[in-house]
Amino acid sequence: MDIENLKSKLKEFSKDRDWEQFHNPKNLATALSVEASELLEIFQWSNDGGLNVINDPATKKEIEKEIADIFNYLLKLVDLLDMDLEKVALNKIKENALKYPIEKSKGRAVKYKNLNSDKS
Amino acid sequence: MDIENLKSKLKEFSKDRDWEQFHNPKNLATALSVEASELLEIFQWSNDGGLNVINDPATKKEIEKEIADIFNYLLKLVDLLDMDLEKVALNKIKENALKYPIEKSKGRAVKYKNLNSDKS
Amino acid sequence: MDIENLKSKLKEFSKDRDWEQFHNPKNLATALSVEASELLEIFQWSNDGGLNVINDPATKKEIEKEIADIFNYLLKLVDLLDMDLEKVALNKIKENALKYPIEKSKGRAVKYKNLNSDKS
Amino acid sequence: MDIENLKSKLKEFSKDRDWEQFHNPKNLATALSVEASELLEIFQWSNDGGLNVINDPATKKEIEKEIADIFNYLLKLVDLLDMDLEKVALNKIKENALKYPIEKSKGRAVKYKNLNSDKS
Repeated sequence: MDIENLKSKLKEFSKDRDWEQFHNPKNLATALSVEASELLEIFQWSNDGGLNVINDPATKKEIEKEIADIFNYLLKLVDLLDMDLEKVALNKIKENALKYPIEKSKGRAVKYKNLNSDKS
Repeated sequence: MDIENLKSKLKEFSKDRDWEQFHNPKNLATALSVEASELLEIFQWSNDGGLNVINDPATKKEIEKEIADIFNYLLKLVDLLDMDLEKVALNKIKENALKYPIEKSKGRAVKYKNLNSDKS
Repeated sequence: MDIENLKSKLKEFSKDRDWEQFHNPKNLATALSVEASELLEIFQWSNDGGLNVINDPATKKEIEKEIADIFNYLLKLVDLLDMDLEKVALNKIKENALKYPIEKSKGRAVKYKNLNSDKS
Repeated sequence: MDIENLKSKLKEFSKDRDWEQFHNPKNLATALSVEASELLEIFQWSNDGGLNVINDPATKKEIEKEIADIFNYLLKLVDLLDMDLEKVALNKIKENALKYPIEKSKGRAVKYKNLNSDKS
């Protein structure tokens, strides 16, 4: 994936519309959260984990657009923070592997703080 | 960015812990939204658009980790939906360019539905 | 419920800590959304609609505290906007009754815009 | 405020539409979070803490409706959990007063865990 190309297209889009004044870190984090909720709304009343939802082609397209919105705001933040998304994502997976040792977390959706308790 | 590598590492992580049972579309969309809120929480009380927040090195690191969490859940959904993230993101930028014509949206943070009104 | 007493206790709490500077409408709406996500996080990986979750007494207590946090931020906004919460809530139920006629919406979790389509 | 009347009207509304099947604890927490985000969206790009936003009468009405939506979902959860909202809200204020002693938190928007550090 050509991340630099995406970041530069997003920057151009904002610049063209003089929207950089709105795109401070807090507002971007807000917009990202709002878009994540719009994605969630699609699954809101599903009682089967969203399986029927993603099998409807029109709804799947809608989901993909919400994911694009989330990703684009994420990239705006990545650009603004000048961070290496791939490296940070890989590091987070490694960190989670330490926080959630296989033997202790196997089959249990428990927060790492509670891994030593009996809560399942 | 090597997206396929990230997706495969994420898949392995879940498989090792037998967590695929929890990672249905609805639960992943929920987790994504929860992580986006954890990012937002960092900016919650900022009155300067989050500028001071990102200038603190420890907080910046925390922000990067939240962004990694969001991105990793996003990639799990991308994988599950078998979608082309880069293509969908580029298409969304093009679509937004049509929804928000430069002349009408310049300097105005207005929803596209209201672009023809006087609301600014 | 004595709403005025709650609002006045909340106001005193902020005043005592000189926190009114942080409690502008946008920050309160952000805090409300963050708290709503903390509530949601408790149900994040539940595959039975959260039934097991609420049957655990310790978790039920945690849920009640999150609901209190949400309600208290809601009341701060209600106070700041000088609105009549009870009246507005009753009006919204009436409005929804018109948006979702019984015959059309019975047993279907469909947005009112789509009530005339075949989507279920 | 007559909470029992509101809860009973909300119950009737769901029953009439056979929507109780959708209103399990997890789905209600999801809907609550989605509504809180819809409220937040209104303030998304505000750079003055939302002051201009609430001064526009049409937008203020919109805000009040979102607050009603949030409150109504909150009451559905309160009903389902059979909890005493007023009591829990009052207790949470008392608890927060202990977590945030006036001398330590005056004028500082810091999480209670960090109150003893120099972070401001």
